[in-house]
Amino acid sequence: MKILDGKMISEQVFDEVRESASELKRTAELVPGLAVVIIGDDPASKIYVNRKVKVSTELGFYSRKHELSRTASQEDVVSVIADLNQDPLIHGILVQSPPPPQISEREIIDTIEPTKDVDCFTPSNVGKLMIGDEDGFYPCTPAGIMVLLNRYQVETVGRHAVVLGRSNIVGKPMATLLSRKNKNANATVTLCHSRSTNIEAITRTADIVIAALGKAEFLTGDMVKDGAVVIDVGINRVDDSTTKKGYRLVGDVDFGSVSEKASYITPVPGGVGPMTIAMLMYNTYKACCLQHRIPIDKPIS
Amino acid sequence: MKILDGKMISEQVFDEVRESASELKRTAELVPGLAVVIIGDDPASKIYVNRKVKVSTELGFYSRKHELSRTASQEDVVSVIADLNQDPLIHGILVQSPPPPQISEREIIDTIEPTKDVDCFTPSNVGKLMIGDEDGFYPCTPAGIMVLLNRYQVETVGRHAVVLGRSNIVGKPMATLLSRKNKNANATVTLCHSRSTNIEAITRTADIVIAALGKAEFLTGDMVKDGAVVIDVGINRVDDSTTKKGYRLVGDVDFGSVSEKASYITPVPGGVGPMTIAMLMYNTYKACCLQHRIPIDKPIS
Repeated sequence: MKILDGKMISEQVFDEVRESASELKRTAELVPGLAVVIIGDDPASKIYVNRKVKVSTELGFYSRKHELSRTASQEDVVSVIADLNQDPLIHGILVQSPPPPQISEREIIDTIEPTKDVDCFTPSNVGKLMIGDEDGFYPCTPAGIMVLLNRYQVETVGRHAVVLGRSNIVGKPMATLLSRKNKNANATVTLCHSRSTNIEAITRTADIVIAALGKAEFLTGDMVKDGAVVIDVGINRVDDSTTKKGYRLVGDVDFGSVSEKASYITPVPGGVGPMTIAMLMYNTYKACCLQHRIPIDKPIS
Repeated sequence: MKILDGKMISEQVFDEVRESASELKRTAELVPGLAVVIIGDDPASKIYVNRKVKVSTELGFYSRKHELSRTASQEDVVSVIADLNQDPLIHGILVQSPPPPQISEREIIDTIEPTKDVDCFTPSNVGKLMIGDEDGFYPCTPAGIMVLLNRYQVETVGRHAVVLGRSNIVGKPMATLLSRKNKNANATVTLCHSRSTNIEAITRTADIVIAALGKAEFLTGDMVKDGAVVIDVGINRVDDSTTKKGYRLVGDVDFGSVSEKASYITPVPGGVGPMTIAMLMYNTYKACCLQHRIPIDKPIS
């Protein structure tokens, strides 16, 4: 069993994006700019947002954080997005999820200018992904998983990949990316979800399993075949009185039993998480290039 | 074995849409309008276009055919589309495929106003389909297949559906519609394609098989399990010197051997084909309602 080290591969991607951004500055005097909008004071959201700002600064990007109070109205948020859509220093906009209950996330996302939608959440970017139009963005988590598989030379062509979970952010675009016509994809993909029956019979036939259903340690060793490649997208809190915080974080995969059968497996943390932020940085760089009609220096794959 | 009679179900849908359109005229003085653009003089395309115009007229719609010569330029076509986008009498626009080689179909489609894109080919409508936003359209062929399954009360929830073919028009949206969270969907879906290996092992586990790969009589009886539901999207010409035309039309399914094992099967012709045009009519009616912010009278499902 080998670990798919997302921490290490993300560092590779950061280095490549940093270099491309530096080249962009040298040749076109352009600096990729990322705006992160956070509404309210959820501690986990704050940590994520600060990490995104910190990393983008480290890569030589311009970055800006917009903090709105947890009582902000829909109009307040829309107005911030409208300004960012017009701002020539900003190439990528993201709204940290989840917003407070009075805010319609869908409506907010729909106001983001698609060329700045580095999360790939707007309908037109989701559609471009599905159609195979390269001028959009790939959503960060599934795109990061594709890069991780590729850099470890995990064969996907003709292989059976099973995706557990049909979220708009991970499951559905993951299935799309794995099955698209591309030398690093071309997998036969099965998408399972909460209404699927007999999931274990399906996962046992899988060469690659992507667990993204948000159920702690759902995938167990008896559900995978020997030599399977297992990707764990989950981050779940489970009570644990032996820890200082009273809980610990686990994935959707029961690492202990699955790692005994898998040929490759991602750890939690240090697997998919770092790849997500790496692809966000790449998308911001790509957004800057697309908006200025400059060819991408080195496409990340 | 029972036949899934697309001809008969399409007549039901036509009646329902005709009634809804008549209600729309009575209550809001609105008539759904469909514009069909055809470039060149391909005989098959002409037949399709004439059929669409004829049916829409029969349903009480306003319809218009725009015939461009086969030497028309990209600008000529774009200019026609631009006029139709602005035309208040027209609610749905479609461009008959395939256009002549000098025309970029993708570019043409991208100029269609999404609210008039009744084929559901523009990125934003494809994205809405994938996200689950009901304000777009469902592509006609897969949507028609869903209606056909539903009207014959074919259970899809938790069932394993295998889609053969990953085209943007049928395979990919078919997989999306079958797997979405909906009481008439919720299937576990596997998408197979030209690079899939061991397809027969996968189709043999399927409760529902959708063959949309464009290979004459590809799916044979030994590839399906007893009681499977089989949908044939293909229309292929095969040489046949015993016929007057020298060829006959067959589907992607070997009807003879598969019908011996299937519980339900669509014929070719008279299966999926009529449902496609029925859903085009429904989408045109829906487009008219959406553009005038009028609730849909009776959603077709």
